[in-house]
Amino acid sequence: MVEKPRPDPGEGEALVRTLRVGVDGTDHEVIAGSHGGYPKGEDHIVLGHEAVGVVVEPNGTGLSEGDVVVPTVRRRPNGSNDYFARGEPDMAPADQYHERGIDGAHGFMSEYFVSPAEHLVHCPPELADLGFLVEPASITEKAIEHARASRSAFEWSPESAFVLGNGSLGLLTVAMLRESFDRLYCLGRRDRPDPTIDILDELGATYVDSRETPVDEVPATYEPMDLVYEATGYAKHAFETVEALAPNGVGALLGVPSDWAFEVDGGALHRELVLHNKALVGSVNSNVRHFGRAVESVAALPDWFTDDLVTGVYGLDEFERAFDDDDTTIKTAVEFGSR
Amino acid sequence: MVEKPRPDPGEGEALVRTLRVGVDGTDHEVIAGSHGGYPKGEDHIVLGHEAVGVVVEPNGTGLSEGDVVVPTVRRRPNGSNDYFARGEPDMAPADQYHERGIDGAHGFMSEYFVSPAEHLVHCPPELADLGFLVEPASITEKAIEHARASRSAFEWSPESAFVLGNGSLGLLTVAMLRESFDRLYCLGRRDRPDPTIDILDELGATYVDSRETPVDEVPATYEPMDLVYEATGYAKHAFETVEALAPNGVGALLGVPSDWAFEVDGGALHRELVLHNKALVGSVNSNVRHFGRAVESVAALPDWFTDDLVTGVYGLDEFERAFDDDDTTIKTAVEFGSR
Repeated sequence: MVEKPRPDPGEGEALVRTLRVGVDGTDHEVIAGSHGGYPKGEDHIVLGHEAVGVVVEPNGTGLSEGDVVVPTVRRRPNGSNDYFARGEPDMAPADQYHERGIDGAHGFMSEYFVSPAEHLVHCPPELADLGFLVEPASITEKAIEHARASRSAFEWSPESAFVLGNGSLGLLTVAMLRESFDRLYCLGRRDRPDPTIDILDELGATYVDSRETPVDEVPATYEPMDLVYEATGYAKHAFETVEALAPNGVGALLGVPSDWAFEVDGGALHRELVLHNKALVGSVNSNVRHFGRAVESVAALPDWFTDDLVTGVYGLDEFERAFDDDDTTIKTAVEFGSR
Repeated sequence: MVEKPRPDPGEGEALVRTLRVGVDGTDHEVIAGSHGGYPKGEDHIVLGHEAVGVVVEPNGTGLSEGDVVVPTVRRRPNGSNDYFARGEPDMAPADQYHERGIDGAHGFMSEYFVSPAEHLVHCPPELADLGFLVEPASITEKAIEHARASRSAFEWSPESAFVLGNGSLGLLTVAMLRESFDRLYCLGRRDRPDPTIDILDELGATYVDSRETPVDEVPATYEPMDLVYEATGYAKHAFETVEALAPNGVGALLGVPSDWAFEVDGGALHRELVLHNKALVGSVNSNVRHFGRAVESVAALPDWFTDDLVTGVYGLDEFERAFDDDDTTIKTAVEFGSR
């Protein structure tokens, strides 16, 4: 924890008092030094990219004092560029963005932050406590949007979805997909009793233990999947996804693996993609439009689900606990203030 | 060559007098026995899936005698199914279609054929000589439609396209893409002088010799590609495509390889798909809608191009020559009659 001056909003920026900031796997990677980097010329980065706060100084932006807002993550590195100009910074190539709390720009784990109003998304006040779930939900909104777009040239009526990974993003995604898919499956590698498997049971999803049923055997053991959502970052899963898919299915890829060479039956995978009209769609980050939809998705989550998903919200006096990563921890946040 | 009775059209079917039928790589695979199969209970299959003909007996279908028509390829195997009912047999899984001239149903290399009117696409009479190019063009129409659909959730303004393979389908595709891409590239492995490279030069496309520049080195040597169109069926190309793509780019996969295991840097490929929002879209066959657009695309091809592309049209007395497959042969057809 460090002392920093309260930031002054520049032109077009609002000053926001932070309520809560969620913790996810990316934070752990930033802490480990395996992902992201400090702002230029600085010797540290303020963590945090899943924030919710209250506007305290609208500063002529059109926002109102007391508005509950969620900030998006990507910012212009210097000057504007086409991707930001059209509201699609999520599609910018690597040298044309910073990511707050991750790469090149300070994040939101501080009592106050400033942000251009265009990067702040309104959140209903009653959702203030759960607003830190909007950013991860927006990641899923974008991935599913792109996956569906890839199937929009024909009549696609998906029924089965398979989420790889029973971490907080996987569980959130299963919950978000529950209205639009008849049958949901989620991959993990844990023994019962386990709190994440309990949540899957309650959601009506089928838990698939990867130690018993590898991803490519899922069609034979369960059923071929219309949608596969891969967020583990385990590279072999990206390839096995092709075999897990039903004809005309799509795999949304979100995990970020390191280099790892291995053998694949490239001919069979290539042929399977072609002869069954399958697609793989990579997706990273999200934009204001996805955040807007994510606000609605988070608002629609059942209370029991968010109660079980959020295993801890910790004040600054015990913030380290929010970074625990054991089998009883699902989703945590650091609390900086209340409304 | 065998004698068969002239077919009688059933209800909803028209009798068509065949004009020309094109030959492609699939025909060679069917002849070699490596793809497709005979109609059930028969000891042969009539070849040919790239046909154009003239309606001689409309048989109450709404077609008129003298209409020039191109037949689509897939047919109901027995009874109907949802894919055929909604005009998307190209999206049917393997057990829900036959392919005329390829798998389970006789093709069009005969003086007459019958077809349900719903599987016949009108062709302007002046295009009768080139109507056999409509089916291959429809394959590209579908692949590009699906590739573009996968990029429809954001603003995508592609400028560069890279066609893998300088066979007849590759050249036809380069010609079809010439209006919508600023810069076109086509991969081959031949020395100049070569008739296919001459066509690429004339189209303003850049010939990429795969022996000098492997697909994954194309971004460094030329530029990253917004669209890659893979129709060689060489499985390594499907994976190298990920590296050849620009951020937000899409690879359309059409080739059909056999099993072939090899090592890939799966981590790097997976990461590249995710962090740069790339997609791979498999595509097979095509439907009436794609045939309709293909008629327009073929009509828009320059005369010099079709003159150079079609290296031979042979009557029944020398039909074997249409199956030659040497370096001077690009596209051939068998001629069964004239208008």
